[in-house]
Amino acid sequence: MFQTDSENDSAEPHYLRLRNQIANEIEAGILSSGARLPSERKYHELIGSARGTVREALSQLEAEGLIYRKDRSGWYVSPKPVTYDPTRWSGFMTYVAEQGRLPATETLQVKTEKQPPAILDIFGKGVRNPLYRVERRRSIDERPVLVEDITINPALAPGLARHNLNGSLSGVLRDVYGLVVTRNHVEMRACALVRHTAECLGVKSGTPGLLVIRTSYDARGRVIEYDQEYWCANAIRIEVDLTVA
Amino acid sequence: MFQTDSENDSAEPHYLRLRNQIANEIEAGILSSGARLPSERKYHELIGSARGTVREALSQLEAEGLIYRKDRSGWYVSPKPVTYDPTRWSGFMTYVAEQGRLPATETLQVKTEKQPPAILDIFGKGVRNPLYRVERRRSIDERPVLVEDITINPALAPGLARHNLNGSLSGVLRDVYGLVVTRNHVEMRACALVRHTAECLGVKSGTPGLLVIRTSYDARGRVIEYDQEYWCANAIRIEVDLTVA
Repeated sequence: MFQTDSENDSAEPHYLRLRNQIANEIEAGILSSGARLPSERKYHELIGSARGTVREALSQLEAEGLIYRKDRSGWYVSPKPVTYDPTRWSGFMTYVAEQGRLPATETLQVKTEKQPPAILDIFGKGVRNPLYRVERRRSIDERPVLVEDITINPALAPGLARHNLNGSLSGVLRDVYGLVVTRNHVEMRACALVRHTAECLGVKSGTPGLLVIRTSYDARGRVIEYDQEYWCANAIRIEVDLTVA
Repeated sequence: MFQTDSENDSAEPHYLRLRNQIANEIEAGILSSGARLPSERKYHELIGSARGTVREALSQLEAEGLIYRKDRSGWYVSPKPVTYDPTRWSGFMTYVAEQGRLPATETLQVKTEKQPPAILDIFGKGVRNPLYRVERRRSIDERPVLVEDITINPALAPGLARHNLNGSLSGVLRDVYGLVVTRNHVEMRACALVRHTAECLGVKSGTPGLLVIRTSYDARGRVIEYDQEYWCANAIRIEVDLTVA
């Protein structure tokens, strides 16, 4: 299964070679999602490398989000990330289900709150405080993967809090309020998950995250939703495919 | 400039309010790129909050990549990130310059190396080891922002190492070897920058990063470049704008 160090004929550092071997086994499904990895001692015996080398390889895989440590019980293969294509229109509940996974949404709170100027500016002239703020947690296969904070103008969706928001919010805005999105602006940046967000997701503060900010407009240019999603980095993969016209 | 705690009329935690105020000043350019922030003690005096609250606000801003700590000399505003739109075709040297910034590329090494099966699979049937591997470091306004590892099939670009690769590699492949890219597949995920990569970029191991993997194909479906870019998370912002047809 593993090359031993004596067979090493490349200039690649040992830890990287072990990292690649484990990554390949995950890719190939030999080590499947949720599976427990052999112990560090086992790897040490198999490849004959120093324990430090094994630990380096595992910490590299952890940094890439391919494996995670559960308490003191060892290393596990991270669940496969879902693919999100910002050039497609489908929402979370749809694209997660399309990938054969189980999506779920839980509304944590809906409040009416005074927003800072930077948020008001996004909504444009004439928008007045306070605005709605909807905090939701979303999970895939029962694992929390994102916490989102959605800002909505109550003038466009009065009484929104009375509706069930544990599904597609765009659906409610469309079906109940007649608000149809015709333009999406999506911005993404890597971040660290800290404090409240990390707590909601059950991860260690400082865990790599991906912040996805989506501003949805209707045909009249009004902001329908301003959504800030904090994802566990290893739960999402962005993919865009582009061909010359 | 700052509200004091006594004026606080919102349920927002104090640290978040301070975080928002500082973020707004950065957004508005009151605190400009590279500027040093007032000291923690100064903030403490200005807003009358506990020192712990000030530190919480600053660590939140650090996690978001808006500020960074320089040794012991204090907190500084991070340079503005460049915007990368994966639905556009322009390369690093072009889109960075278009944003009024100074791009530079430095080739760290070019080697001929045996690749693992996972990489060979990307290149498809008939591709034989070893392949070229080009490691480059790219900077914006003289700050290193990404390290990339590019794999190229030597059968398509024999003698590539003899060319100057400190500019647009796609340009060399097109002009010297007649290889024209017609399809790009871009994949992105958040990661942590560790070890070698962190060292090359001069950041602390564990710093948030963004891994951008781009596979470029020509019209015959051959892989022209397989590029893995490790970005400092706070140097790049992904933006996609999408309108219903």
